[in-house]
Amino acid sequence: MAIITLTTDFGLDDGYAGAMKGAILSINPQAAIVDITHLAPPQDVFHGAFALWAAYALFPRGTVHVAVVDPGVGGARRGIAVSGGGYLFVGPDNGVLSLALEGAADTGGRSGDPLVAVERPLPPGYAAVEATNPRFHRPEVSSTFHGRDVFGPVAAHLSLGVPLEHLGPRVETIFQFPASRPSVGAEGTVRGAVLHVDRFGNLLTNIRPAHLPGRHVRVRAGRAVINGLSDTYSAGEGVMALWGSNGTLEIAVKNDSAARILGLRRGDPVLAEVVAQ
Amino acid sequence: MAIITLTTDFGLDDGYAGAMKGAILSINPQAAIVDITHLAPPQDVFHGAFALWAAYALFPRGTVHVAVVDPGVGGARRGIAVSGGGYLFVGPDNGVLSLALEGAADTGGRSGDPLVAVERPLPPGYAAVEATNPRFHRPEVSSTFHGRDVFGPVAAHLSLGVPLEHLGPRVETIFQFPASRPSVGAEGTVRGAVLHVDRFGNLLTNIRPAHLPGRHVRVRAGRAVINGLSDTYSAGEGVMALWGSNGTLEIAVKNDSAARILGLRRGDPVLAEVVAQ
Amino acid sequence: MAIITLTTDFGLDDGYAGAMKGAILSINPQAAIVDITHLAPPQDVFHGAFALWAAYALFPRGTVHVAVVDPGVGGARRGIAVSGGGYLFVGPDNGVLSLALEGAADTGGRSGDPLVAVERPLPPGYAAVEATNPRFHRPEVSSTFHGRDVFGPVAAHLSLGVPLEHLGPRVETIFQFPASRPSVGAEGTVRGAVLHVDRFGNLLTNIRPAHLPGRHVRVRAGRAVINGLSDTYSAGEGVMALWGSNGTLEIAVKNDSAARILGLRRGDPVLAEVVAQ
Repeated sequence: MAIITLTTDFGLDDGYAGAMKGAILSINPQAAIVDITHLAPPQDVFHGAFALWAAYALFPRGTVHVAVVDPGVGGARRGIAVSGGGYLFVGPDNGVLSLALEGAADTGGRSGDPLVAVERPLPPGYAAVEATNPRFHRPEVSSTFHGRDVFGPVAAHLSLGVPLEHLGPRVETIFQFPASRPSVGAEGTVRGAVLHVDRFGNLLTNIRPAHLPGRHVRVRAGRAVINGLSDTYSAGEGVMALWGSNGTLEIAVKNDSAARILGLRRGDPVLAEVVAQ
Repeated sequence: MAIITLTTDFGLDDGYAGAMKGAILSINPQAAIVDITHLAPPQDVFHGAFALWAAYALFPRGTVHVAVVDPGVGGARRGIAVSGGGYLFVGPDNGVLSLALEGAADTGGRSGDPLVAVERPLPPGYAAVEATNPRFHRPEVSSTFHGRDVFGPVAAHLSLGVPLEHLGPRVETIFQFPASRPSVGAEGTVRGAVLHVDRFGNLLTNIRPAHLPGRHVRVRAGRAVINGLSDTYSAGEGVMALWGSNGTLEIAVKNDSAARILGLRRGDPVLAEVVAQ
Repeated sequence: MAIITLTTDFGLDDGYAGAMKGAILSINPQAAIVDITHLAPPQDVFHGAFALWAAYALFPRGTVHVAVVDPGVGGARRGIAVSGGGYLFVGPDNGVLSLALEGAADTGGRSGDPLVAVERPLPPGYAAVEATNPRFHRPEVSSTFHGRDVFGPVAAHLSLGVPLEHLGPRVETIFQFPASRPSVGAEGTVRGAVLHVDRFGNLLTNIRPAHLPGRHVRVRAGRAVINGLSDTYSAGEGVMALWGSNGTLEIAVKNDSAARILGLRRGDPVLAEVVAQ
């Protein structure tokens, strides 16, 4: 069965996600539609990008991932479909798909604000098109709801086997968040950032094990200085740091919210370094 | 595969929607169940009616739409099933299904408060029954949860092909919200109303293009006077008006909440008129 | 089609539930996954246990119910799979599964706080294993997300017919909430407790009809003294008591929140007695 996932800021109150699902099922009634989230804050493209990144690789190869956080709907931004890494991706070209593309924004010079998307060449191994062919949209396309009228239908057609290149012309560059690259200072200090605060108040960063080649690690986040990493939430005391379920450094407090206790939020810096014992 | 949609005020915290889905799947394990919303505010029948209206027509013909916002559960209100327009509908007879029935409450004299359901003849092309036949309910019917014990099971049986008339006796009138009819004054001024405030703070009204036969339109909503319509959210400046994704007039603010900025809510008046250039 | 239900505290914002569904579908792409709730408050094991209890028996026999509210993830608590009563259950051994096991914690001496799980023998008719066999986990198991890496995969394998005993060694005791047993005083006064406050503000208790053998019942909850039971929400006036949809005594207020009006919450006592007319 074809699987289509949805990541949006449509909310759960108004029936917008339901309408999008109806549009998909009208084209492919056999599609298994799975929600990743519909609760990206309104117009928060990065939140959608992060949620998609955290979940996409769990799905079977061939899954079509649709992400629609789309403040530019109806305007000049492009709608795109991307193939690569075993998956298909559909959404506006504003960065919302980019964290799920391996190697995205890893090239291209100095990274700026990790939360501001920049136009960059597609990462190697990916192909993309601008999904302009109206044959694969709903017959009438509104100017305000492309999730229902464009992206959902395009995903449904992809799930039925329509080749990517039928959807529209090739594109070679797309908008990408340069979020996955903390900067590394001369003395090995890694300057990362909080990329996401989750429901539990855990602070998820962009620092990976490869950035910290050593056993003894010190982490600074807000006023907290954390010596050593914990293995689990339940083993730690006070503010702890550990490798989270996505393989990146996470700041947490057992049964409490690190975000609240430290007063930190997305975009705030997190410093980490390997220390001598 | 049979599709059944759900529109309720059950919330997402307590497992009520899950229980209803279990009851459906116990009768038709092949049903594809799609949520429209479970976050109608408690007992807010109109919210459910609006969400269903906005989404139902996107689904494939034959879909069974169940809507249960049901403050009168266990009391004298009827439970009904309706067929027409290519769909089946199941729910309490309190108006929650009515906006999704084309032509509902378009007859019947002066419309009163658009948010108060009135009993009216079924619109042309629809058939309805009172779903009283216990053979199509759960063996034990509680007095407080007909979504699980009556409406879900009835929908499951309909999705398996049970004919409407097996469910109970015909009814000729049902409760309907007269919401789709703004009044039109002598000089062409359309007096509509806000029918829904969505997650983004957009104000969705009951004014349609047919009410405004002309290119230049002026809209008054709260303290805002809006000259001309925008094409997209991103193209507009400040408070804008545009034709929304459901084909009705919408008041919006780019990347912000029109409801908050204007202090408007459901039921508030919106005036629109065609103006000379 | 195999049905798998999910009950968690993962929330709906971050995509955690989506990731867990991806892990399940990667093992059994045909699974029909149904959410019971993902909105148990963070680390609120009892909320998850209650929501699962209220919904599990509605599903077809053979359904696999997974519940993951897991503050001890990665630590010493066991992960278990349980078979019995026509269903399969998977989750951490902290009580989250226990209310759905018929007869759980009905044995074992004095019940203490109904909201604190205690280790007890499995109730009769159930079998359980500790799900330690890594063959049925994801290849890499994180220390913080066993819903995705252990419990989801185990459930997917069970849904494909893997026998329970392949998952790991038998266990004879599991943690159970002694919540289903109000105490009965010498004069027949039943001292129960609020086990759950639902979205509508209804107070759901652990008092059952068998505890009140008589027609005329008086209920005391907070400052309210309620004489007689109502049949439906809509028939009652003021604060009412009635047999709720799960067969237990419920305190409610028509179109309003009993919890707010009475200032009561989970764990608070509710007294009921049969009175002479």
